[in-house]
Amino acid sequence: VRLFLVSILAMMTASAVAADDTALREEANAIFNPLPHAPPTLAGNPFNTDKVELGKLLFFDPRLSSSGAISCSTCHDLAEGGADKLSKSIGHGGQEGRRNAPTVFNSVFNIALFWDGRARTLRQQARGPIESAVEMNNTPEALVATLKGIPAYVEKFSKAFPEQEEPLNYDNVTKALESFQSTLLTPDSPFDRFLRGEDKAMSELQLRGLRQFIGQGCVTCHRGTNVGGNAFFTFGMMIAPEVRVRPVNDHGRMEVSGRSLHDYTFRVASLRNVARTAPYFHSGIIWDLREAVRIMAKSQLNATLTDNDVEEIVAFLGSLSGTLPQVDQPTLPEATKATPKPVE
Amino acid sequence: VRLFLVSILAMMTASAVAADDTALREEANAIFNPLPHAPPTLAGNPFNTDKVELGKLLFFDPRLSSSGAISCSTCHDLAEGGADKLSKSIGHGGQEGRRNAPTVFNSVFNIALFWDGRARTLRQQARGPIESAVEMNNTPEALVATLKGIPAYVEKFSKAFPEQEEPLNYDNVTKALESFQSTLLTPDSPFDRFLRGEDKAMSELQLRGLRQFIGQGCVTCHRGTNVGGNAFFTFGMMIAPEVRVRPVNDHGRMEVSGRSLHDYTFRVASLRNVARTAPYFHSGIIWDLREAVRIMAKSQLNATLTDNDVEEIVAFLGSLSGTLPQVDQPTLPEATKATPKPVE
Repeated sequence: VRLFLVSILAMMTASAVAADDTALREEANAIFNPLPHAPPTLAGNPFNTDKVELGKLLFFDPRLSSSGAISCSTCHDLAEGGADKLSKSIGHGGQEGRRNAPTVFNSVFNIALFWDGRARTLRQQARGPIESAVEMNNTPEALVATLKGIPAYVEKFSKAFPEQEEPLNYDNVTKALESFQSTLLTPDSPFDRFLRGEDKAMSELQLRGLRQFIGQGCVTCHRGTNVGGNAFFTFGMMIAPEVRVRPVNDHGRMEVSGRSLHDYTFRVASLRNVARTAPYFHSGIIWDLREAVRIMAKSQLNATLTDNDVEEIVAFLGSLSGTLPQVDQPTLPEATKATPKPVE
Repeated sequence: VRLFLVSILAMMTASAVAADDTALREEANAIFNPLPHAPPTLAGNPFNTDKVELGKLLFFDPRLSSSGAISCSTCHDLAEGGADKLSKSIGHGGQEGRRNAPTVFNSVFNIALFWDGRARTLRQQARGPIESAVEMNNTPEALVATLKGIPAYVEKFSKAFPEQEEPLNYDNVTKALESFQSTLLTPDSPFDRFLRGEDKAMSELQLRGLRQFIGQGCVTCHRGTNVGGNAFFTFGMMIAPEVRVRPVNDHGRMEVSGRSLHDYTFRVASLRNVARTAPYFHSGIIWDLREAVRIMAKSQLNATLTDNDVEEIVAFLGSLSGTLPQVDQPTLPEATKATPKPVE
C-alpha cells in the first residue's frame, strides 16, 4: 500500500509539473519567439550564397581598415561570443572606442544597430566602423579602390551581384556584410527548445528563473525573438545607476535625436548568449552577470533581488546560450602589385 | 602516312617529357622533401589531442595579451596565409613591429624561429610575442594568473597534461601552443604531389620554373622540407640589396650572436605558400613576388634574370601553395568575476 501511494504521489507531482510547464510555455510564447534556424529576408538585399560567401571574406578581411590591421572580426570575434572581451574595443592606432562592442550573433533581429540605434539595418551599420576614425579609419573611396585592386574580389562581387554592371561598390560591400551577418544565428538554446515544446530542455532552476524574469517585470523591455533588442528605453528609468556604469558624458539616443526625452536612452540589449558576452552595458565595466542583473533590477524596476532571485534569473539567462554557427577560417584573396597598400 | 608520322612524333615527345620529368623528379627529391601530412614528434612535448585543442584556444585567445585585444592569430592569421598582409605587424597600443611577421604554417619544420633564428623551437618562440612590449606586452606571471582565473582553462590544462600536479603554468602554455602550431601544415601542393610521383601535378611552366630554380642556384639556400627555413645566410651575399629592402639598422643574426660574421644574416625564408604571404623579406616592403625573385637573384647570386626566367620561377613558386588546414572558429572559455581583467 505504501509503495502504491508513493507511486500515485510521484505521478501527481509529475503531472502537476507538466501542467505547470505547459502554462509557463504558453505565457512565454506570448512574450518571446524562438530563434529561427534560417536568416530572415533582408529588405532590398535578396539572399544568395555567393553574396554570403563574399560577405564572410569581407568580414574577416583587415584590408577593410586603412591600416590593414583591423577587420570586423577584430571586435566581433566569433570565438568570443561575436564581440570581444574588453570594456571598450581597441581600434585604429590603439585607440579605445566609446562603448562596449555588442555581439554580431542574431543582430539581424534587432530593431536597430548601435547602442543608440542610429543605424536601422546591418547594412547601414556596416558603414559606421569602416568610416570611424577610432575604428577602421577608412573611406568608402579608399576601400573600393583597395578591393578593386584584388582580382578575386572583382570576380566575387560579379558573382554575388550578377545583375549589376559595376558590382564592386561601397553599397554592395555593406550588402554582402549584411548578408553574411544575417546567417550568424545561434538557434536551439535550451530556452528555444522549451518554447518549441521540448520537455526537460530547461532545468528546474532555469524554469524558476524564467518565472522570475516574467514576474519581476524584466520582460517589459526584454521580449521578442532576441529577448531584447527590439525597443528603446532609458537606462535608469526608476533609479539612476552609478556614474561608472552610466557615465554622464554618454547621453545615448539623445545624441542622435536631439530630444531630451532620449537622455540616457539606449536600445535594449539582446540577452541571447548573454552568459558569453561579458563585460556588460554600454560602459562595459561590469564583468559579473549577477551584478548586471542586480543593477538592472534596481535601475529599471526599483527592485532589490535576493541572492536566490539572482541565482534563478542568471540560470535562466544561461538557457539563452544557443548553438554557435560553425565558421571555418576563410582564405582571403591575394593582393597584387597594383593593390593599394595599407596606410602606415 | 602523315597521320602515322604525327602519332609517332607525339608518342616520342610524350615519352621524352616523361623521361625528362622522371629525371627532374629524382633530382628534386635529392634536394627537397615532400611536406608530411602529420606533425613531427616534438622533443619533450609528446602529442595528445587535448593539448592540441588547448593550444588552439590559446592561439585564438586575445587574453594572452595584457590589453586583451591581441592574440597569436592577430598577426598569424590563418585566413591570411598564417601571417598578416602588413609590412610590419601592429601590436600593443598600435605600435608597429620591427620585422615582417613570418607565416605560422609549416613553421614546425624550420630550423629555428624568428628572422634572426633566436628561438630554437616553437615553444621558445611563443614566449617572444607574449612578453614583447610592442606585441602582447604581457608577463608570464600575469598571463598564468589570467588563465587560472578562467575555470575552463584550469580543467583543460589538467586534461592536456594529465601526469602533472600543477599543469597550469607558463611552460605548458608554450607547449600547448607548440602542439597546435605543429598541426598547421599545408600538404599536397602541386610540388609535393610531383615529388611523390604524380604526373601532371605541376604545369609545364611550373616544371620549367623548377628547372630554373635548381639551375640558377636558388636551391643553395632554399631546400629541404620547407624549401628554405633550414639554414642561415647573409642577405646580400653577392650584392647588397637597396637600403629600403635591407635597412641598415637591422643587423639580423649578428644582434643575437654578437659576431660580425653574422651581419645581415637571417634564417632563409621558407618558400612554402610564398604566393600567399606578401609582402616579402624581413623589411616587408616588397609586395610583388616577381620583384622579390629579381632582388634575390641579384643579391644572392648576382644573376640578372630575364622576364621569362622570372615568369617561370614565379610559376614554380605558385606550385608551393598547399592545402590549407580547415580550422573552425573555436569558442573561447568564459571568464568569471574573479578573472584578472585586461589592463587599460
